[in-house]
Amino acid sequence: MADKAGPLKETFPHPPRLSDAFLEEVEKVVGSADLKTSEAELIAHSRDFWPLSQIWFLKGKIPALPEAVAYPESTQEVAKIVKLSAKYNVPIVPYGGGTGVLGGAVPLFGGLVVDIKKMNEILEVNDKSLLVKVQAGINGWRYEEALNSLGYTGGHIPQSLPSSTVGGWIACRAAGQFSTKYGKIEDLVVSVEAVMPDGKVVKSKTVPRSSTGPRLEQLLLGSEGILGIITEATLHIFPFPEKRVLLSFAFDELERPLEAVRKILRRGFFPAVVRIYDEAEVSLHFRNLKELEGKSLLLFVLEGDAKLTDLEAEVVAEECRKEGGSFNGEEPVKHWLKTRFDVHLLAEMVKAGAVIDTIEIATTWDKATELYHRTIESLQAVDGTVHASGHFSHFYQDGACLYLTFGGFPTSPEEYYWQAWGAVMETTLKLGGTISHHHGVGLVRAKWIHEELGEYFEVLKKIKSAIDPLKIFNPGKLGWGE
Amino acid sequence: MADKAGPLKETFPHPPRLSDAFLEEVEKVVGSADLKTSEAELIAHSRDFWPLSQIWFLKGKIPALPEAVAYPESTQEVAKIVKLSAKYNVPIVPYGGGTGVLGGAVPLFGGLVVDIKKMNEILEVNDKSLLVKVQAGINGWRYEEALNSLGYTGGHIPQSLPSSTVGGWIACRAAGQFSTKYGKIEDLVVSVEAVMPDGKVVKSKTVPRSSTGPRLEQLLLGSEGILGIITEATLHIFPFPEKRVLLSFAFDELERPLEAVRKILRRGFFPAVVRIYDEAEVSLHFRNLKELEGKSLLLFVLEGDAKLTDLEAEVVAEECRKEGGSFNGEEPVKHWLKTRFDVHLLAEMVKAGAVIDTIEIATTWDKATELYHRTIESLQAVDGTVHASGHFSHFYQDGACLYLTFGGFPTSPEEYYWQAWGAVMETTLKLGGTISHHHGVGLVRAKWIHEELGEYFEVLKKIKSAIDPLKIFNPGKLGWGE
Repeated sequence: MADKAGPLKETFPHPPRLSDAFLEEVEKVVGSADLKTSEAELIAHSRDFWPLSQIWFLKGKIPALPEAVAYPESTQEVAKIVKLSAKYNVPIVPYGGGTGVLGGAVPLFGGLVVDIKKMNEILEVNDKSLLVKVQAGINGWRYEEALNSLGYTGGHIPQSLPSSTVGGWIACRAAGQFSTKYGKIEDLVVSVEAVMPDGKVVKSKTVPRSSTGPRLEQLLLGSEGILGIITEATLHIFPFPEKRVLLSFAFDELERPLEAVRKILRRGFFPAVVRIYDEAEVSLHFRNLKELEGKSLLLFVLEGDAKLTDLEAEVVAEECRKEGGSFNGEEPVKHWLKTRFDVHLLAEMVKAGAVIDTIEIATTWDKATELYHRTIESLQAVDGTVHASGHFSHFYQDGACLYLTFGGFPTSPEEYYWQAWGAVMETTLKLGGTISHHHGVGLVRAKWIHEELGEYFEVLKKIKSAIDPLKIFNPGKLGWGE
Repeated sequence: MADKAGPLKETFPHPPRLSDAFLEEVEKVVGSADLKTSEAELIAHSRDFWPLSQIWFLKGKIPALPEAVAYPESTQEVAKIVKLSAKYNVPIVPYGGGTGVLGGAVPLFGGLVVDIKKMNEILEVNDKSLLVKVQAGINGWRYEEALNSLGYTGGHIPQSLPSSTVGGWIACRAAGQFSTKYGKIEDLVVSVEAVMPDGKVVKSKTVPRSSTGPRLEQLLLGSEGILGIITEATLHIFPFPEKRVLLSFAFDELERPLEAVRKILRRGFFPAVVRIYDEAEVSLHFRNLKELEGKSLLLFVLEGDAKLTDLEAEVVAEECRKEGGSFNGEEPVKHWLKTRFDVHLLAEMVKAGAVIDTIEIATTWDKATELYHRTIESLQAVDGTVHASGHFSHFYQDGACLYLTFGGFPTSPEEYYWQAWGAVMETTLKLGGTISHHHGVGLVRAKWIHEELGEYFEVLKKIKSAIDPLKIFNPGKLGWGE
């Protein structure tokens, strides 16, 4: 059993749930080297990248400590652990890269963290059908690098790529920076294998399409660990792009690049990366490019088949010109490509006492600019805000994702944090947008999930109760999963 | 109450489930004109387009009679009917166009059929976001025609279009002839409204994407009436194509057009219609085109943005040439466009004593030709088969749908029917394909659904029990929905 970490205080204290008998049985499954109870392991698995928990952490406070961490190496080991958890009524929290930003991986009720990072093999590459089968714990960066070296791309490049896992992408319903062309994780996943709360292993078939009832993948996409532990997945891959074109355009008003992108997609072209920055984000991220001052910036990465990419570049330029965009070369895109995984500034600011967070929401085109203006205003109206900005990314024929960044140096950080979140969530709900585009629910959004889902919330609770009657899978998460 | 239809015999007889008290209450909800118990209404709702039931029908036998048919005109009326059904423990079968081909709409245990065809309004067209909101009972042909007249296409053109409904497309997880470009129904549906078995109305939000748990649409897609009654839906629409190009190519071997199509999709081009006919289907459907005798035929309809369509035509021609295809002009495509909704020959053959049916299955590219050869052989090996043919349609970067047609003049029609189905289902399962691409499960595939889904079958049963504990929603269907 773990020695309770000395000076650390838990935000969510909980009575112990593990017995020596349980640990002994788990140890028999994974081996003693893969069952950890050291203080360092427990602290490492006490949280994810949730900014509020980082603030707590700097004050010597952590969200909640697990009691042990197991590193299974196979689906069968996961299944055995789950059966033991059911037998001993022990909460289980599946853990991938721990890069979630909403507290979804916090072991609220203690228990056992099942870290899947040792299940990290690429099992099969099917060139003819452009599919790859992997264990769910494979690291995102390693996954993409391995595919690149074989002549493919996975097409899923979230900011968390260096640390996140394929299983985490699925469980948290992720979307990557190249999603406008390659799709979000639900478009990329073809089949999954998972361990359910009763310890049974379920699989879906690797087929291009099936009309045999609701799909298993769809039950697990966005389930954030409360319905099953994903152990394997088969995903689409794509030929490594034959050609890549970088384009940027500057506009006087945010509405114009939105219109340009809407029309490009309406014509049936899907650029891989599309990003529209407002004036405040331009001055934050592109301050070295003086000509962009006071402008909105639209970036594109076009890639794929050479002929298609050339035509896409022509159409993109045509539609941007029509909306009054002035061509601004490759430089801003190169700058973005170079800095896109860099989050060190945020960490520095938090250490300096700032509260900083990002909120991603989405809506249809007809409400996009209103959602932008109203949410920015709502953030600016919160006492303590010194920065509120937004960019649009992840575009669809019917709408787009708005990614907001806010920050302040408030006297009461925690109060400010919830006020800022509340302002955006309530404004979004009022305007009919969705409260999360791709970060998920975790602990933070649990407060608003009922209003987001309406009566369907009760249906999900019934499904959760039917599948996990003991409530041992990541308890306390997702609002409806308590 | 209905007079029991005189000389008709039910294949699945069942004790009566309706009481006068129930009917009186339902009549108060929908009005007396919209509650039918005439023999004609009951017979009309006793079956769908299931070929075996057509054979029975010709012998004066029907699958099962409902006891009444209600035609609600609003979601609230549906909700009230469902609450009454729960109160009186009466089975409910939702009914759209009745164009299913697997017996999914047969009221196995009698009770009330809820026919949604009076809920047929287009509620809203959102041009900016390319969305249309409709009541679920709207007829497919009317839907597409209305969209065309406004300058759009819905992109969903199943063979059943003249009779099927939008709600039926969703419940039965349909796919249309233009799916390679526009997507299958799960790609087209953005949000739904439905009445659950407890009478509660659930809705999902009309947003381009959301990371707030598993999606409601995904629970209902393919649920075939056993989890909820879909009452409204919002779907993607597309600008009416600026340009359309028809192309056809003839090949000596079936493998070559498959390779050509695989490579076209791999490059990132998605022709709207792609169909590959084997020799037997060419001689069945294109016998007037003598030059095609003994060939495999590949048809394309390319459409959309003019520039994109032109480039697509160039790439299609290039890849077909590389695989040895000889260009065969527009004529075969025009012939297909003209005859594609015509199923009268099948009906004639059945009247003449033939057993004819189609089976759609799917697999990944690496197994596509093997699946074709093995399933055709398995059909030919069934005693009584006089015709076994196939075409591929609905293509993906990872695979394709194989659509088989078989027919015979057997001495024992029903025995032959199940032998032929069994041959294809078992061959498909053995080769790892999926037993249905887009027709669904209904009654016919219930026999094989457990093997198709494996352990996940038990998860679905738990979900069904949690959502419909009284088992009143389309009981006896989908294998796991009993």
